[in-house]
Amino acid sequence: MDGSELPQGKLESPALNDAVLVEVTRGDRVESVHRGHAVVCDAKGGVLWSLGDPGAVIYPRSSCKMIQALPLIESGAADEAGLSPQELALACASHQGAAIHSDPISRWLARQGFRDEDYRCGAETPRDTSTREALIRAHGAPRQIHNNCSGKHAGFLTLNRHLGGGPDYELPDHPVQVAIRQAFEEVTGEPSPFYGIDGCSAPNFATSMTGLARAMARFAAADPESDPRERAMVRLREAMAAHPELVAGEGRACTELMRAMDGVAIKTGAEGVFIAILPCEKLGVAVKITDGTTRASECAIAAILVRLGVLDPRHPAAVKRMTPTLRNWRGMQVGAIRPALALMG
Amino acid sequence: MDGSELPQGKLESPALNDAVLVEVTRGDRVESVHRGHAVVCDAKGGVLWSLGDPGAVIYPRSSCKMIQALPLIESGAADEAGLSPQELALACASHQGAAIHSDPISRWLARQGFRDEDYRCGAETPRDTSTREALIRAHGAPRQIHNNCSGKHAGFLTLNRHLGGGPDYELPDHPVQVAIRQAFEEVTGEPSPFYGIDGCSAPNFATSMTGLARAMARFAAADPESDPRERAMVRLREAMAAHPELVAGEGRACTELMRAMDGVAIKTGAEGVFIAILPCEKLGVAVKITDGTTRASECAIAAILVRLGVLDPRHPAAVKRMTPTLRNWRGMQVGAIRPALALMG
Repeated sequence: MDGSELPQGKLESPALNDAVLVEVTRGDRVESVHRGHAVVCDAKGGVLWSLGDPGAVIYPRSSCKMIQALPLIESGAADEAGLSPQELALACASHQGAAIHSDPISRWLARQGFRDEDYRCGAETPRDTSTREALIRAHGAPRQIHNNCSGKHAGFLTLNRHLGGGPDYELPDHPVQVAIRQAFEEVTGEPSPFYGIDGCSAPNFATSMTGLARAMARFAAADPESDPRERAMVRLREAMAAHPELVAGEGRACTELMRAMDGVAIKTGAEGVFIAILPCEKLGVAVKITDGTTRASECAIAAILVRLGVLDPRHPAAVKRMTPTLRNWRGMQVGAIRPALALMG
Repeated sequence: MDGSELPQGKLESPALNDAVLVEVTRGDRVESVHRGHAVVCDAKGGVLWSLGDPGAVIYPRSSCKMIQALPLIESGAADEAGLSPQELALACASHQGAAIHSDPISRWLARQGFRDEDYRCGAETPRDTSTREALIRAHGAPRQIHNNCSGKHAGFLTLNRHLGGGPDYELPDHPVQVAIRQAFEEVTGEPSPFYGIDGCSAPNFATSMTGLARAMARFAAADPESDPRERAMVRLREAMAAHPELVAGEGRACTELMRAMDGVAIKTGAEGVFIAILPCEKLGVAVKITDGTTRASECAIAAILVRLGVLDPRHPAAVKRMTPTLRNWRGMQVGAIRPALALMG
């Protein structure tokens, strides 16, 4: 199953009509350039502002984990399992496998009687430096719990127990993924034209840039007094914003930028995707860098958050992404990464 | 010194008039796209074929190490120091700090009475997995000898001893770098409009794509019976082609692709640069990926080498760069990297 059997939508390159978003300099010259698409949607799902093509169809990758967690809550599975806000944040995380991530997820699995072997995400070397180096010193092998998606998959396992599906919860026609696809299409407001298989083996449903930003605006505008979907959205966005260290990890953009803002939830995705949920402004943001580079998606989302008035450009976490000084092996300043003029507003 | 005091040439973005060179797919959809410039020059320095803008000005980064090694030979310093072909290959290398790299470079330094502290390249964690993990297990710190440029800098130290310059051989106005700039401008056939400081602290002189490809065509067409410059070019291209494992390391594109060809020398550079020297065809190739991504420069150079008839597209080293299957953490095939149609010829 790799998505290739699905009926085909229009096959367009993400390079079509993209815009220069980020520049990398050396000396005072531009050495490299990153293009992409950026969309800000308002509470009604309208496009408030965009660069590039808001109609470009992309894989949201891990940026949509809070959408994938909606059925976990809406089904009643999360409350049945007594999931805490920390566990909901981990369900939305691309964590780096530090003890602060793997320990609570292990306890979550154990509480439900699941083992590492029940996972379908695959083993991944932890990105957390001290955890990785400790593993190397112990001549140990990474396990599935170290996979950056192991919190999301703990959510899949928990939802699957509630739904009573078979063990292959990652297959696109499994009830877990069918429920996620339905939620995904409802919140993006579009049928998903195709899917691909993600790094963690789950299907990743494609959407337009506008669809992704619209979904995030719905998370942003969701009312805790409203229907079950909006209440689930509020719980997830609040869990992410309250536990930024669980959503990524120390030193990472999601964690450091969320700490620098008040109540804003943001999330990275592979291949240059980034989203933001701004509850006070009731806005949703989506960014895709055409070439898939994380240094550029981090710079672009930071610049947009500054532009929208929720991130102080002088905050160290903002400076680190928007205008980081590139230093060489001897610590000399050799260049910088910076938002392109069009992004500065 | 960061190059910013230099008179300014035209400040153009490398994104101007670039072409789609490489696509990254997931399922059967294009998820990410890499653009860039590619030029093939013939023995007379004319542009035989190009994609993107052959006039684009770039930093060649480490792709021009064989140019930086020319004064080492032409000055007589290399023969005075009795440098072997292996040591000349290491002078042109971006190695990964394995013992096969650091051991011979250490012996080269020791033979000349130099110590690690004489280096100006900075300490870099070795990229070779077993060397890096051994260092972690020993709680050791990387040294300057582990820097991927430590062979080039051993050449700088050797040239500097011959020239009698001061210890700061990396400064742009030092005799070592002045000699390199002169050689660089002669072989590219252009004045270098500006420079930046490279990762290893040495100046990196800018050139047009055509200038870089022209320089490589001169290396390719150089005659061992001709003048000192051409003889130096032959020694360097032959040293690289004869010792591919020294130019990069096991698993790396330079090493594996050179082993797959006969007498062709190739070299990667940071921020998406790649060059090739084809002696039988007397052709030089230069590639720059606008967004600076190595996965794309490796794919593009492999496709061009196939197109020029010197690389078998079925060779595993070619398949690994031109159409590598992207697998997820469980080993499932999820996508691929492939040359864009325009590159396939």
